Amino acid sequence: MAEQSSNTVWHHATVTRQRRESQNGHKAVVVWFTGLSGAGKSTLAHAVEEQLHQQGCRTVVLDGDNVRHGLCGDLGFSETDRSENLRRIGETSKLLVEAGVITLTAFISPTQADRQRVRSLMPHGNFLEIYCDCSVAVCESRDVKGLYAKARAGEITNFTGISAPYEPPKGANLTLHTGEESLQQSVSRVIELLQQRGIIPAKNSVTHSG
Amino acid sequence: MAEQSSNTVWHHATVTRQRRESQNGHKAVVVWFTGLSGAGKSTLAHAVEEQLHQQGCRTVVLDGDNVRHGLCGDLGFSETDRSENLRRIGETSKLLVEAGVITLTAFISPTQADRQRVRSLMPHGNFLEIYCDCSVAVCESRDVKGLYAKARAGEITNFTGISAPYEPPKGANLTLHTGEESLQQSVSRVIELLQQRGIIPAKNSVTHSG
Repeated sequence: MAEQSSNTVWHHATVTRQRRESQNGHKAVVVWFTGLSGAGKSTLAHAVEEQLHQQGCRTVVLDGDNVRHGLCGDLGFSETDRSENLRRIGETSKLLVEAGVITLTAFISPTQADRQRVRSLMPHGNFLEIYCDCSVAVCESRDVKGLYAKARAGEITNFTGISAPYEPPKGANLTLHTGEESLQQSVSRVIELLQQRGIIPAKNSVTHSG
Repeated sequence: MAEQSSNTVWHHATVTRQRRESQNGHKAVVVWFTGLSGAGKSTLAHAVEEQLHQQGCRTVVLDGDNVRHGLCGDLGFSETDRSENLRRIGETSKLLVEAGVITLTAFISPTQADRQRVRSLMPHGNFLEIYCDCSVAVCESRDVKGLYAKARAGEITNFTGISAPYEPPKGANLTLHTGEESLQQSVSRVIELLQQRGIIPAKNSVTHSG
């Protein structure tokens, strides 16, 4: 038995990201949507995901729904906790990208510093920052979750756009005017960006090579 | 513009785990390897991954290498921190499984309570606990990382198997005698379990249906 165990070789990872991407027929990347509450980040992420899935891509969406109650369930909304929340989302996105999955994230992520920090976690070119540019007025008129009303009433403090600042990205990879463009227009622009970057094939279907 | 924005529909996720699994041609699951340092968890996880990849499956391995410096880089090795480490790994595994990826984890995870907590995060049947049963003597004789020597010298405290307890799983889904079986035997038994559970096709290749 000792003889057998001494034969055991230390196994490094042999299944690499490159092999996974080859199997999938597309590359992996983080598509990071940033913008005010109500700017349409989550809607857009899910709509882009639907189109990518139909084209044969491996995708996932991270947003408040699947992160705030799980991975980051121990965190609140202080500045420190919001920062740690985004750090963990960034690290998890990195693992998903390593697994070959196009990872679409939908978080307000209001500060340049936090977004830059997440970008710096990733290999160069693996973080696409998409600014969902939409005025407070339009976001507030939508107020899908009733959060703006609560923020105006003082029931929520540190609410981005009302009582806390939002720092628009400097040098986003794409800016979408989500208060003006139609959803389909925005989706098409994201898909085009992914094609231009060589993340997904330029044509409308993915060949399975794996 | 207001007209257009009022047309915006709140998009829920339309790409479900079921659609991803159908695209992949296999189901997703967490395969959780537990056992002493040196019991062969990481070696085994990577060897199982290689076989699964060759069969056309989507896979990833989580181990100390890609988690301790990233997602859990802020955590130490106190009991509380080790517990939080495993909680985050569990939550991240859940996201990976949701993304359709067979997720192989290789962590000592010495307590029944921590492993049970991770199991409870997942939908029923989505957590397969694999006990890498190997004596301290054999693990210590391998001592690939030189950690047992350091633990014996008192340079590492709370070292599982030497100065901290390991609680063998009660009711593991599979027990491998990794000090006695060959690596290939162990790999085959894990693959058989995945076939028996209907996670992967019983035959040797996956049909791409997506």
